[in-house]
Amino acid sequence: MIDRGHHPIEPWRLRETRLQMDRLAQSESLFALSNGHIGLRGNLDEGEPYAIPGTYLNSFYEQRPLPYAEAGYGYPESGQTLVDVTNGKLIRLLVDDSPFDIRYGYLTQHERSLDFRTGILQRDVDWTSPGGKRIRVRSRRLVSLTQRAIAAIEYVVEPVDQPARFVVQSELVANESQPKLSDDPRVAAVLDNPLKPVSHDGGDNGVVLIHRTTRSRQLMAAAMTHEVEAPARYAMDLDVRENWARSTVICQLQPGESLRVVKYLAYGWSSLRSETAIRDQVAAALSSARFSGWDGLVKQQADFLDDFWDGADVEVHGHSELQQAVRFALFHVLQAGARAERRAIPSKGLTGAGYDGHTFWDTEGFVLPVLNYTMPDAAADALRWRHSTLGMAKERAAVLGLRGASFPWRTIRGQECSGYWPAGTAAFHINADIADAVMRHYTVTGDDQFLEEVGLELLVETARLWMSLGHHDRHGRWHLPGVTGPDEYSAVADDNVFTNLMAARNLRSAAEVAVKHPAKARELGVDSEEEACWRDAAAAVHIPYDEDLGVHPQSAGFTGYAEWDFEAYKDKYPLLLHAAYFELYRKQVIKQADLMLATFWCGDAFTPEEKARNFDYYERLTVRDSSLSACVQAVMAAEVGHLDLAYDYAYEAALIDMRNLHHNTGDGLHMASLAGAWTALVSGFGGLRQVQGGLCFDPALPEGLPRLVFTIRWRGVRLKVDINSVDVTYSVHDGPGASMTLRHAGERITVTTDSPVTRSLEKRQPLLPRPTQPVGREPRSAIAHNDH
Amino acid sequence: MIDRGHHPIEPWRLRETRLQMDRLAQSESLFALSNGHIGLRGNLDEGEPYAIPGTYLNSFYEQRPLPYAEAGYGYPESGQTLVDVTNGKLIRLLVDDSPFDIRYGYLTQHERSLDFRTGILQRDVDWTSPGGKRIRVRSRRLVSLTQRAIAAIEYVVEPVDQPARFVVQSELVANESQPKLSDDPRVAAVLDNPLKPVSHDGGDNGVVLIHRTTRSRQLMAAAMTHEVEAPARYAMDLDVRENWARSTVICQLQPGESLRVVKYLAYGWSSLRSETAIRDQVAAALSSARFSGWDGLVKQQADFLDDFWDGADVEVHGHSELQQAVRFALFHVLQAGARAERRAIPSKGLTGAGYDGHTFWDTEGFVLPVLNYTMPDAAADALRWRHSTLGMAKERAAVLGLRGASFPWRTIRGQECSGYWPAGTAAFHINADIADAVMRHYTVTGDDQFLEEVGLELLVETARLWMSLGHHDRHGRWHLPGVTGPDEYSAVADDNVFTNLMAARNLRSAAEVAVKHPAKARELGVDSEEEACWRDAAAAVHIPYDEDLGVHPQSAGFTGYAEWDFEAYKDKYPLLLHAAYFELYRKQVIKQADLMLATFWCGDAFTPEEKARNFDYYERLTVRDSSLSACVQAVMAAEVGHLDLAYDYAYEAALIDMRNLHHNTGDGLHMASLAGAWTALVSGFGGLRQVQGGLCFDPALPEGLPRLVFTIRWRGVRLKVDINSVDVTYSVHDGPGASMTLRHAGERITVTTDSPVTRSLEKRQPLLPRPTQPVGREPRSAIAHNDH
Repeated sequence: MIDRGHHPIEPWRLRETRLQMDRLAQSESLFALSNGHIGLRGNLDEGEPYAIPGTYLNSFYEQRPLPYAEAGYGYPESGQTLVDVTNGKLIRLLVDDSPFDIRYGYLTQHERSLDFRTGILQRDVDWTSPGGKRIRVRSRRLVSLTQRAIAAIEYVVEPVDQPARFVVQSELVANESQPKLSDDPRVAAVLDNPLKPVSHDGGDNGVVLIHRTTRSRQLMAAAMTHEVEAPARYAMDLDVRENWARSTVICQLQPGESLRVVKYLAYGWSSLRSETAIRDQVAAALSSARFSGWDGLVKQQADFLDDFWDGADVEVHGHSELQQAVRFALFHVLQAGARAERRAIPSKGLTGAGYDGHTFWDTEGFVLPVLNYTMPDAAADALRWRHSTLGMAKERAAVLGLRGASFPWRTIRGQECSGYWPAGTAAFHINADIADAVMRHYTVTGDDQFLEEVGLELLVETARLWMSLGHHDRHGRWHLPGVTGPDEYSAVADDNVFTNLMAARNLRSAAEVAVKHPAKARELGVDSEEEACWRDAAAAVHIPYDEDLGVHPQSAGFTGYAEWDFEAYKDKYPLLLHAAYFELYRKQVIKQADLMLATFWCGDAFTPEEKARNFDYYERLTVRDSSLSACVQAVMAAEVGHLDLAYDYAYEAALIDMRNLHHNTGDGLHMASLAGAWTALVSGFGGLRQVQGGLCFDPALPEGLPRLVFTIRWRGVRLKVDINSVDVTYSVHDGPGASMTLRHAGERITVTTDSPVTRSLEKRQPLLPRPTQPVGREPRSAIAHNDH
Repeated sequence: MIDRGHHPIEPWRLRETRLQMDRLAQSESLFALSNGHIGLRGNLDEGEPYAIPGTYLNSFYEQRPLPYAEAGYGYPESGQTLVDVTNGKLIRLLVDDSPFDIRYGYLTQHERSLDFRTGILQRDVDWTSPGGKRIRVRSRRLVSLTQRAIAAIEYVVEPVDQPARFVVQSELVANESQPKLSDDPRVAAVLDNPLKPVSHDGGDNGVVLIHRTTRSRQLMAAAMTHEVEAPARYAMDLDVRENWARSTVICQLQPGESLRVVKYLAYGWSSLRSETAIRDQVAAALSSARFSGWDGLVKQQADFLDDFWDGADVEVHGHSELQQAVRFALFHVLQAGARAERRAIPSKGLTGAGYDGHTFWDTEGFVLPVLNYTMPDAAADALRWRHSTLGMAKERAAVLGLRGASFPWRTIRGQECSGYWPAGTAAFHINADIADAVMRHYTVTGDDQFLEEVGLELLVETARLWMSLGHHDRHGRWHLPGVTGPDEYSAVADDNVFTNLMAARNLRSAAEVAVKHPAKARELGVDSEEEACWRDAAAAVHIPYDEDLGVHPQSAGFTGYAEWDFEAYKDKYPLLLHAAYFELYRKQVIKQADLMLATFWCGDAFTPEEKARNFDYYERLTVRDSSLSACVQAVMAAEVGHLDLAYDYAYEAALIDMRNLHHNTGDGLHMASLAGAWTALVSGFGGLRQVQGGLCFDPALPEGLPRLVFTIRWRGVRLKVDINSVDVTYSVHDGPGASMTLRHAGERITVTTDSPVTRSLEKRQPLLPRPTQPVGREPRSAIAHNDH
C-alpha cells in the first residue's frame, strides 16, 4: 500500500514528499512518463537506486521461445517481450569527490511531483554529500506529446553554502542489468543483453547509439545532445562506445550560482528501415527538439494537455482523493494512447514490462471507450493498428482450422503469444471486443471513412470467425461451445453468455455495415447470403438461463457447480497463486466481471430485474483478482441502485495503482483499471451508455458525492454533464451553433451551445438489498476516505 | 507397415528373415527382451547400425525440468525420464582386419527369431567380410525370467571356408549417444549423458561399472563375466574405464571350428542402497547365473514359460496371423509384468522409452485384467506398487486442495509428471481405474489378505478423493464437473458418464470392503458415517442421457456439439498433430473408447438396447488415434452383435505392433493394446465378464473364426474354454477334485475336473446394422487376412 502521507492529496498532481526505498518499483511506475511511443519509468536521474530500470519504445520487442512440457498443435512457439532499451534518462553527478547517491550522505529534502496539466515530472533534492557539501538538484523531465520521438530533461545543480566542483555525466547506456522480479508467472520474462551494437557516433551535434535485437531483428537508435548554462568556465568531454556514451560537464560553482544542463533525447526504431535512415531520423528529431528548445517543448506540452483536459476532465466534488486519482488515471491513459499511432496500447502502457509488455482485450474493451470520448483520434489509431495485423489474424485462424480472423489473446506485434490456450486461444471474445470497439468508435465519432477503410473489414473477418466457431443444434439454436469468457477462473465452457451476446452483436454489426458499404463489402467477398447467415445466427443465439434461480448462468451449467470455499481461501488472494486451474474452473468462483460485463455492454439483452438478480448473484462470487473487474462492478452496482457500492468500486478502480491494491503496480500501471475509473464515474454515476447509435445518460450520485462534472467529446462537440444530488445539467461547449441530441433517462433531449438543459433526478431504489462479497474481498469504503 | 513377407506367420515365434534397414526401430521393439526388471531392445550384438539403442532398468530414471510458457499453481516442475543405462548387449567382432558390420561386405543370410516358448532371441548371420572372409555368427540372448537381475548372451562364430582370425570384444558402455527421434510430443525427451561414473572394477570374476544419475541420485551397477570355448589357443584381455569396459577374446579358427563366448550380465540399482551394497548385489547375481550356466538359464526360462502358457494360451483356429499375434502379445505382456515386482509397468513395458517410460492408467485398465487371469501375482505386485506410492498421491491431493489420494496421470516413481493438466491432472478417472483394478484382482484371486493389506486403503483414499471432487446439486443429484474422461479429444467436461459410473463404483466398493474389514477400516479413520456418505453419493450419481437421440452423451452436452469435419481431416491422422485441442474438444470426435468403455466395464448400468444404440452412435465418431480403443470396440462390437466388426478390431489390437499400425512401434510396444488383443478375444468372443464377484461367459464367434480356445486362471484352478461356432465347452484343468462355478449366458453352471460342461450357442443378432466409421478410419478386415 502506498502511504498516502507521502503522497499528499492535490487535485492536479501526484507528489511524493519522501523517497521510500522499499517502494521504489511502485513510484517508478506512478511517475512514468510516456507519449505512447516512448516510455520512461520514473527512475532517478542518477540511475541508482532502482527497482526496475525501464526505457521502452512502443512495439520494440525481442522474441523468446515459449517452452511447453507437453506441446500441442497450434501452440505458439515464439513469444514477444518488451525490451528495456538504451537508457537516456541517466544524468550522474559528482560533487567534489562524492557521487551523488541518495543512499549516502544526508538527504534534507527529496520531492517528486508529476503535474497532470504540464505533463512534467519535477524532482527537488537537498542533499549533503558524505564530504559535507550541501547541494540542491532540480530536474524536470518530459516525454513530448507533440514531438513523438523526443524526451527532454532539464537538470539544475547548485551548491547551498560552500563552493563545490560539479561533474555532470549525461549518458546513454544500452543493456542495463535487470532485476529478477518474482516467480509470479505474470511478471515479464527478463531478457539479458537484448541489444547488439550496430554503430555508434558522436560529434558536436549529438551522440547516437544504434542497436539491433538478435531474434526479432529490430533496429533502434538513441541519440542525445545538450545545452549547458554555467555562470563561469566549464569543460565538456565526450566518450562514445558501442554500448554507452557519456557527455561530461565540469565546473566550479559558488553558492548562489547554478549549472543548468538541458538534455534532448531522441529515439527511433524500425524493423524495415536501414541503419542510415534510422540514424538520420533521430538526428532530425533532435535538431527539431533543439529548435523548439526546452521552453518550447514545455509550452507545447502544456498546450496539448490544456486541449485534452478541456474535453476530458472529470470533477469529483467532495472526494479529493478520488478527484486526484481520476485525473492521475486519465493522465496515464492519455500518455499510453496519445502517440501510439498504429501501434498497440499495452495493458500497462509504457510504464513497465509487466505481462511482457503485451496488449490484450483491455485496450478495446476498457481503454478505447475512454479515448473515444476524450481523444478519439488515438482510439482510431489503436483500431488501425489492429487492422494492420489482420493478415496475421487470418493466418492464425487458418492454422486453427477456422475461417476469418482470429486475433491474438496477447501480443506486441500481432502474433499470438499466449502460452496457455484455455485462457488464451480459447478466449475468442477478444474478436467480438475488437468488433464492438469499431462500432463504439463509429458511434462516438460518426467517422464513415474509418468505418469503410478499417471498420468493415474487421467486422467481416471477425464475423466469419464466429460463423466457423458456432453451430446450430437440432432445434435451430446457435451455440458456441468450448470457449473462454472474460472470467479467467472459468475456461473452455459452453455458451458463455457474454461471448454469445457479443458474437451475435458482431454478426449483426457486420451485416449492417456491409449493407451500408456495399462496394467495399463486395470487395471483401461478402454477399447477401453471407449477411443473411450472420443475421440468422445472431437471431438464433442461445442464451442459457437458470429458471430455478432466476439468473443467467455465466456459461451453460455454471450455476449448478459447487460454490467455492471462500472461507478456506480467505487470505489466499489472488487465488490463482494458491489453487489449481482445474479446481477454479469447476467451482462457482469468479475472477472478474463476466456475466456482469454482459449486462453492462449488452444491457439491452436483459430486463432491469434480470440485471438486479444477476448482479446480486455474481457479486457474491466475484473475487476481483483481475484489475478489469471493479470498474464494471461499479457501473452495474450503480445501474441496479447500489450507489454506495458503486462508489466503493469506483474508488477501487481509480486507486488501484496509487494505493497499489493489486500489489504489482511496480511492474507497470493497470491501464484498463485507470480507464475504468473514468467509466465507473461517467457510465456508473453518469449512466452513460451507447444505445442504438445514440448517447444516453441516467445519472444518480451516491451519498457522499455531492457533485460530479465531466466533459466528453461527441462528433466534434464537447458535452459537459454537471450532476448533483438533485439534478443534472447538460451543456454544449463548442459553438456557436453547436448542438447535440441525447437521451436523459429515456427522454430525448437536444442541447445547444446557447441552451443547456437541466433535468431533476429521481432517487434510485435497488430491487434487492446490497449484496455481500466473498469474505475478505469486501471493497474498501470510498466514503471513509472522502472529505469530511 | 511391417512387410509380413519378412515376418513369416508361425504359431509360436516371430521371425525376421531379412534385415530391413529402414525398419530397425520397429524390429528393435518387436525383438525386445525383458523380464519386467531389465529390458533390452533388440539391438544388434555389434551395436551398429541402430535406430534407438536401449537398455532399461525398471524405474531407473532421471529427472528433467518441465517448462511452461505460462506456469500455473500445482503444475509439476519436474518430470521423470527412463534412462538408457549401461549397454551390456554389445559384442563386437573383428574378422581379420574387418569389423563385422552388416552395412559392409556381403550378407548372405540374416535371420532373427523370438521364440515365445523358450523366451530366447536367436540370430543367425552368414556374412562375407569386405576382405572376402565368409563367416557365420549365431547369437542367442535371454533376459532371465527366473533370475531377475540377469541377462545372458551366447555368441558363436565360425569361419565358413577359409581360416580366419577373430577378435571378439564384449563390452559394457555407459552413456550411448541417442538419436533425435521426432518432434512428436509423445516421443521421450532425450537426455544426454545421464550417467555419472562412480566407480569401476574388473578382475577374474567379472567387471562392474557403477554410475549415478545427477538429479534423481539413483545408483546403478552393470556387471559382466564370460565363459569362452575355443578349439585352440586363445587370448583374453580386459580394459576397464569409467564409462566402458571391454573383454577381448582373440583366436584363429579353421573352417569347421567355432568360438563360443557366453556373456553373463547383471544389473542392479537403488536409490537407497550404498555403492558397495550394489556392487555386491550384482556380483552375487553374476555368480548365481554362472552357477546355473547358460544351459541352466535356458532350461529355467523354458520351464517358466511352459507354466505360463499352461494357464494363459489362446488358440485361434482359422487365422494363423492372429494366432501368432495374440501369442506375441501375451509374451510381451508377460515380459512387461513378470518380474516388475512392486515397480510400475510402463505403457511400453521396457521395450522403448516412448512416453518417457511412464506408466499410465493403461496398466490398471488394460494390462492387469489380463495378468489377473494369467499371472495373478504379477498383477498383485503392480497394485502393491501403486499402494507404495500412496503417500505421494495423498500429498498431491493436498496440493490440489483435495482430500484422499490423487494418483499421477503419468509417472515412473509416483510423482505426477504430466505437463498438460487438461489431459493429465483432470483425468481423475485413473483413481477409479486403480480402485477397480483392486476389486477385479480380488474377484479373480479371492485374496483377502491382499484386500486388507493393500486394497482397502487404495479404495478408501480414492473414495475420499471422489467425495472432495463431487458435489450434490439442489435436486440431490451428485455431479463431477470439469474432469477429463478416457477420450483425450474431449477434456474438462461435466459429468463424464464413464468417470461418474466408475467413481460411484469406487465409492460403493470402498464402503463394501470397509464393512468387511472393520478393524482395518477404523485404522484408516473410516466410520459408518463416511461409508454412508459414499453409498449415498454413489446412489445419487448423475448420468446424463440424451432423450432425443436415445443415447448417453459422453459428458453433459456432448451430443449437442457440432460433428467433426471428418472429410476435411480424412488423411490427417492422428488428428492431434493437425488440429488444436480447443477445436477437438468442442466437437463430436472421439480419440478412444470412453462412453463405449463405460458400457464394457460398467455394463450393468446399461440395457442391451442402450448398449446397441450407444455403440452405433459412438462408433461413427471414434477415430482410434489411441491404441487403447480398438480392443474396447472389439468387445462391445461383439456384445451388440457386430461380430465381424469385433473380429476386425481384435485383429487391429493384436497386430498394432507387428504391423506398426500407429507408426510409432519403434518407440516401444503398446502394452495396453497387446493386452487388449487377449481382451478382444476372451471378453469379446468369449464374453468374459466379472459380474458381482462372479465369472460370466457368453461366447459367440464371427464368420471366419471356426474355433477359439483359451485358458485362464481362477482362484487356483485353470479353466479352459473351447468355443466353436456351434457350442462351447468349459473344462477345469487342475485337480483332481477342482471345481468352479460360472455363468454361461446367464445360466449358473459348475464345472469340475471330471465333468466338463458343453452348451450350445445361439446365433447373436445385432439390433442395428453394422455402423460405419469416420472416413479413412475403417478397420482393416480380419477375414481378408485369415487362412483361406
